[in-house]
Amino acid sequence: MSEFISTGTRFAPLPSPFAFKRGGSLNGGRMAYETWGQLNPARDNAVLILTGLSPSAHVASSSENPEKGWWESMVGPGKAIDTMFWHVICINTLGSCKGSTGPASMDPVTGEAYRLQFPDLSIEDCASAAKAVLNHLGIESLACLVGNSMGGMVALSFLQQFPLFTHSHINISGSAQALPFSIAIRSLQREAIRLDPHWNLGRYDTAEYPRNGMRIARKLGVVTYRSAMEWDGRFGRVRLNSDTPQERFGMEFEVESYLEAHAERFVDQFDPNCYLYLSRAMDWFDACQSCARGGDDVVGALTGISLQSALILGATTDILFPLHQQQQLADGLARGGAKTRFMALDSHQGHDAFLVDIDQFAPPIRHFLDELRKTP
Amino acid sequence: MSEFISTGTRFAPLPSPFAFKRGGSLNGGRMAYETWGQLNPARDNAVLILTGLSPSAHVASSSENPEKGWWESMVGPGKAIDTMFWHVICINTLGSCKGSTGPASMDPVTGEAYRLQFPDLSIEDCASAAKAVLNHLGIESLACLVGNSMGGMVALSFLQQFPLFTHSHINISGSAQALPFSIAIRSLQREAIRLDPHWNLGRYDTAEYPRNGMRIARKLGVVTYRSAMEWDGRFGRVRLNSDTPQERFGMEFEVESYLEAHAERFVDQFDPNCYLYLSRAMDWFDACQSCARGGDDVVGALTGISLQSALILGATTDILFPLHQQQQLADGLARGGAKTRFMALDSHQGHDAFLVDIDQFAPPIRHFLDELRKTP
Repeated sequence: MSEFISTGTRFAPLPSPFAFKRGGSLNGGRMAYETWGQLNPARDNAVLILTGLSPSAHVASSSENPEKGWWESMVGPGKAIDTMFWHVICINTLGSCKGSTGPASMDPVTGEAYRLQFPDLSIEDCASAAKAVLNHLGIESLACLVGNSMGGMVALSFLQQFPLFTHSHINISGSAQALPFSIAIRSLQREAIRLDPHWNLGRYDTAEYPRNGMRIARKLGVVTYRSAMEWDGRFGRVRLNSDTPQERFGMEFEVESYLEAHAERFVDQFDPNCYLYLSRAMDWFDACQSCARGGDDVVGALTGISLQSALILGATTDILFPLHQQQQLADGLARGGAKTRFMALDSHQGHDAFLVDIDQFAPPIRHFLDELRKTP
Repeated sequence: MSEFISTGTRFAPLPSPFAFKRGGSLNGGRMAYETWGQLNPARDNAVLILTGLSPSAHVASSSENPEKGWWESMVGPGKAIDTMFWHVICINTLGSCKGSTGPASMDPVTGEAYRLQFPDLSIEDCASAAKAVLNHLGIESLACLVGNSMGGMVALSFLQQFPLFTHSHINISGSAQALPFSIAIRSLQREAIRLDPHWNLGRYDTAEYPRNGMRIARKLGVVTYRSAMEWDGRFGRVRLNSDTPQERFGMEFEVESYLEAHAERFVDQFDPNCYLYLSRAMDWFDACQSCARGGDDVVGALTGISLQSALILGATTDILFPLHQQQQLADGLARGGAKTRFMALDSHQGHDAFLVDIDQFAPPIRHFLDELRKTP
């Protein structure tokens, strides 16, 4: 049960009580955020970045926190999301353990961590909590709303809940609804955590921690965040150089030690209950609440979103948020009236490509934001 | 620690001792097999079927065992693999728990199950054990060797180890080597089993059984055996109809209950240690032992296999044995001189398509075998 808060993080109070879509509410909740660049006098240069499941608000280094951010190559002075011009805000999602209130936070009523007493969390709640941060900052409109992965879902909900607040939108490797393959993967990740005897219905501590369940969950995540094609070239069948005797059925190939390193890093940096809540929120999300069978209805539901312009990016090798889901977003936003550009980037790095294949993802983002600067 | 042997299964003794490629040997080992149809007087109509990781030798119903086999729609009188003409033999793989000697079998020396005392198992051992069955049956040549999935790997090793024994070959959803995505998936499946406290370094029993690890392993298997495209149409976002209260973070979507049903069936029908051994054997397999980085060398290694004709089938949606691996097989066998036909079947059912999409897989198999009948 831990929270992981980096220096430079600021906090915005949530309305108290803050009501959840599926029932329940928080008292004394807060949201963690960071900002870069200046809000201009016209107050029309704000860009909000909504993250995937696990990142903090530290999207890029800053004078308060010089440590590299999770999208350091994309956000900063002179970069694609140029903080010399844009006032960039990044928010740690509601339900996380990196500053914003979540299952690992202390419930002021009981004086103990919420754990499974935290209300059922939905993507819609994450969006309204993000709006609360903007209210706190006195921001009355967004030049651009940027969402990646889960943040792309939160962004769609934001656009649906707060019409006319946002001028333009960049949705990267996102989707309008969870489909069964990704539900299956996430369900399996949650099951691995829940089956770990140390999970103990959420009542673990650092000594009795569901380490094994988190390891499996993270490794499975990494398998689905990258792509087979990338790994063929990167790892092939190269074996580990190890003189130490392996445990029975232990690691032998480089790809296994790569997964191991990812798991080791993650296990101590993310709270298991927070993971469960956020993971399930993604399964629940559907921008078309009546679209149990998907298809055109999803596109229809998205036409209700009103924007001036939109940029939709996806990677051809993404198996978790497959390209046809980004095509769907583009179709829906275009039909809703946005000047929409859709780009299927031929990147080998799968769902995570936007984090690492900056060479392909930065130029269209830079171009889109440059065009936006020229728009009255 | 259980073996699962159906009626109608016959047994062939392994040479005693039977030496393993990586060291160690078995004494008093045996192989389970079944046969259909008659060996003709010329003894040239034998077709051997090598299975994937988990199936038994019961590929189709027979007079001894009328229960449906795992490939019932493909094998039988008048079917694509026509037992009116062909003498079909199907073998339960060495290392399995369905009749052939494996980690769950009793070691005649100690009087106890081998468990982790079973020698390191490789695909090459599975192939030489299959050959021992043919020797036992007095079969001196194969009209056709058929291998699916892991059985496709065993078949390639068979062709490499026993040149000129086989006239033609059908390889379905197979590969010449394990690549990092499938290694990662299998490594994760093994880790889930090994992390289950009930696994206990292989010393479980029916009371203390690594049920949870096997559940995760099987569910992850099913996710990679099928395809996202199939599930989008089949399950969409349809929820379970359940009046009973769900456990926290429990199943909500149809796709989750589908995985659950698969896991429940598997857990009690496959031995965990056998699973670990066979899974690792697949990771180790490489028809080109010097091809750590893959590519053209694999094709080169396959040119050493001499066949009259070959049929290579794969499914476009297979993520575990992706299509480019079947293309590689076809290229190698063709360069080796076989009249080779490669078909990328546009099936939605992923790696398992050959088991279920009989409409697409049966016609090319039937056609290939019909042509073979006409060959002198």
